Amino acid sequence: MRRGEFIAFEGIDGSGKSTQSRALADRIGAAGRTVVLTREPGGTPVGEAIRAMLFDRELGNFEPRTEALLHSAARAQHVAELIAPAIERGVVVITDRFIDSTLAYQGGGNHLSLVDLESIQSFAVQDTYPDLRILIDVPPETGLARRLADAASVNRIDEAGLMYHSRVAETFRQLAAVHPERWFVVDGSLPQEQITTLIVEAVRNRFGSMSDI
Amino acid sequence: MRRGEFIAFEGIDGSGKSTQSRALADRIGAAGRTVVLTREPGGTPVGEAIRAMLFDRELGNFEPRTEALLHSAARAQHVAELIAPAIERGVVVITDRFIDSTLAYQGGGNHLSLVDLESIQSFAVQDTYPDLRILIDVPPETGLARRLADAASVNRIDEAGLMYHSRVAETFRQLAAVHPERWFVVDGSLPQEQITTLIVEAVRNRFGSMSDI
Repeated sequence: MRRGEFIAFEGIDGSGKSTQSRALADRIGAAGRTVVLTREPGGTPVGEAIRAMLFDRELGNFEPRTEALLHSAARAQHVAELIAPAIERGVVVITDRFIDSTLAYQGGGNHLSLVDLESIQSFAVQDTYPDLRILIDVPPETGLARRLADAASVNRIDEAGLMYHSRVAETFRQLAAVHPERWFVVDGSLPQEQITTLIVEAVRNRFGSMSDI
Repeated sequence: MRRGEFIAFEGIDGSGKSTQSRALADRIGAAGRTVVLTREPGGTPVGEAIRAMLFDRELGNFEPRTEALLHSAARAQHVAELIAPAIERGVVVITDRFIDSTLAYQGGGNHLSLVDLESIQSFAVQDTYPDLRILIDVPPETGLARRLADAASVNRIDEAGLMYHSRVAETFRQLAAVHPERWFVVDGSLPQEQITTLIVEAVRNRFGSMSDI
């Protein structure tokens, strides 16, 4: 059976990743392909438990290394339990965040070594890397403003402030610049429908198997 | 201020680590030194939350890589929040399990690469390695029998069976054999009081600062 395609959406909080990953999943599903839309941290019971822990303010402050290892633990489970088996079955897998989020947030944002983090990612995912990574690039001010407007979803990450988000956004851009063949970068300040159109076009061009979406 | 001493107890479940680490902590405390006795996974609110997760059967099966990363996440928090600051204050820190448990269980028991696991441990603990590691060596049959006798504490680990525990016990022995200068190995099938005596003697000999315990 033909292997499924694996697409990761990346970007800072408030970039519109979740909206756009849903829009792409709907589009691919409408063309008759089976799609799994998932997210990180999460995607499995273990991953969702880790997610709940990461957002639990009662536990005190997480060390940056602890955060990096918790995200990587959730990812190892996600790959082994959900992503790799779905790809094997020929399903299209779309994830809202993957390894580059750990590089951008814990590396760029929290100053941990990208080399160390990449080596841990390799341990966590083995050889299950995305076929395409989509970066929705917005200025950190835009992302933060969109998140803070929704008071119920304000969390530990938002409070870390604008400087932190600027480093995260810049690291995403650098990761895409270093390996342009892996990435499609789209301007997240465009209207939503236009972003979806650009992403669908990029996916059609990248995958012969999805020329009809 | 003089740096505190850091001692790790290692061994399979049912080896008597917990009893012996308490006995050593009591002995050092009675000699007038401040002692922190802690355990892994655990030792901090984040670490205890990870521990609860690892023993939660409702979450399904943990992948070996997920387990390794969760233990390492708990350890990173443990070192940064509790162990390293205590050592800095001149306190004696005794932990029931540390990095070698991850090498023995996830490496030896679950066949993950020791090289990969050591590299993740280095990321998690930075340069906070034990000054002395104490291996309480018991045959896997003994450890398992002691644990299974206590039905309330039977858990996922015990069920993994005797072959798994044999590999874990053998890996602990190999780790101690490769770096004998790091380890004191004691026969865990001796009477408890005799084991305590041998451990106290080893600690006295190793640390000039504890010649009076």
